[in-house]
Amino acid sequence: MATKFDRYRVPPGKGLRLSDIAPDETKAFDGDKDQARARTQTLNARLEELQEALYAEGRHRVLVVLQAMDAGGKDGTIRSVFEGVNPQGVKVACFKQPTRHELAHDFLWRVHPHTPGAGEIAIWNRSHYEDVLVARVRDLVPETRWRRRYEHIVAFEKMLADEGTTIRKVFLHISKDEQRKRLQERIDDPKKRWKWHPADLDERRWWDDYQRAYEEAMAATSTEHAPWYVVPADRNWYRDLVVSELLLDALEGLGIRLPEGDPGIAGLRVT
Amino acid sequence: MATKFDRYRVPPGKGLRLSDIAPDETKAFDGDKDQARARTQTLNARLEELQEALYAEGRHRVLVVLQAMDAGGKDGTIRSVFEGVNPQGVKVACFKQPTRHELAHDFLWRVHPHTPGAGEIAIWNRSHYEDVLVARVRDLVPETRWRRRYEHIVAFEKMLADEGTTIRKVFLHISKDEQRKRLQERIDDPKKRWKWHPADLDERRWWDDYQRAYEEAMAATSTEHAPWYVVPADRNWYRDLVVSELLLDALEGLGIRLPEGDPGIAGLRVT
Repeated sequence: MATKFDRYRVPPGKGLRLSDIAPDETKAFDGDKDQARARTQTLNARLEELQEALYAEGRHRVLVVLQAMDAGGKDGTIRSVFEGVNPQGVKVACFKQPTRHELAHDFLWRVHPHTPGAGEIAIWNRSHYEDVLVARVRDLVPETRWRRRYEHIVAFEKMLADEGTTIRKVFLHISKDEQRKRLQERIDDPKKRWKWHPADLDERRWWDDYQRAYEEAMAATSTEHAPWYVVPADRNWYRDLVVSELLLDALEGLGIRLPEGDPGIAGLRVT
Repeated sequence: MATKFDRYRVPPGKGLRLSDIAPDETKAFDGDKDQARARTQTLNARLEELQEALYAEGRHRVLVVLQAMDAGGKDGTIRSVFEGVNPQGVKVACFKQPTRHELAHDFLWRVHPHTPGAGEIAIWNRSHYEDVLVARVRDLVPETRWRRRYEHIVAFEKMLADEGTTIRKVFLHISKDEQRKRLQERIDDPKKRWKWHPADLDERRWWDDYQRAYEEAMAATSTEHAPWYVVPADRNWYRDLVVSELLLDALEGLGIRLPEGDPGIAGLRVT
């Protein structure tokens, strides 16, 4: 159903300019930070219920793809949005730099085993999109090859959708200055220092190229069956709220119900 | 370190009689139900912290094996003990009746891929122990074969431990009458009916054989590196508390610390 959070949906087949969306805007919510946090908590409780029913029903599968620039808040989003949800029905897969073994296969080979099963929610922290992002920006494969991947991605996701998977793809959109602050914090705060990788600084130099790669990849692969959302993510509280709303909206649309069980067992006594 | 919850540890190489442990006892905790719930919440918050550090440090791996009779409370335990813990570092694997494909391999083949990676906690809802439990009781393989599996299990778990995995194995110990009540609830409560399987009643007839199979399997495979605990589980609040205590004790013993990161980056400015 249409909600005010649909403003962040990337329209299929049109150009996308990330600079048109302010990373620090909070337009789809009327309240302040505390009110947003309270609303996110409410959504979280509802997510807990729906996930339980999803699992019990064992009919639908849900895939959430999370992408962002470094320090974009993927980990924090997962923590906040899924807090309290039964880990039994939620699988998080992190896709880091591919291993030699993974590179020996097609680019969808390593993600496919992590698609959700019946009744499951799978969350991908990075994904097959890295193969049209970093692969493009850092020239890891020739353009003819990464460009063809857009079609392969659309086809793969269509197959998943046709087989019963609901897909939502989220780009956490931060500003270059917000990234600077967050990376600086990783240096200055001893508690965050473990998150620091020297490669982050190097990657940061390619900021504009990444933004362009994201724009083109999202425009080419945002479909009816697997839409992309660009979520303003400079403010964590707004980001958490929007991602929760988008996910809940998708789940509510599925008409999930606790299965009724076999009516024939009514009156049965266990001895 | 020794705690009062060690009373539930199965001593290696000695006989075990489940009837010596009352499923409804609460001896290792002085308070009442509300106090136990409050304590479990405190432990839960600490678990959240430790799991975060475990993940950040990426050095240790933790495996929790959960076994129980039907309706023994495995799902509820996972939900309560791990509530609020970041799903990113926790992987739950459910082992149901093996598929034909799984049966075409050795009995450890299907569990091995689900062992925890560095910084991860893996929870197994049922496990390779089914292959010395149901396989024995229902005569799925000859005794010579399931009996040899005790040694294979000990060797496999020793290998995991030597490679850096901390293992805790928990049997949720309910009484036959408590099982009756819980199965009856699944029939009578429409919200629980989806959990009902006709096979549950059939399995229940083999109660005594299962208890014997558990006793022998646990006695044969409770080791220093992978101890079994028999947790009285008729009362959910006590069960949750004891499992939390056991898990926390194991984690505290690891000396997990947030990694310090590269000291050379101090003073670095991100531009």
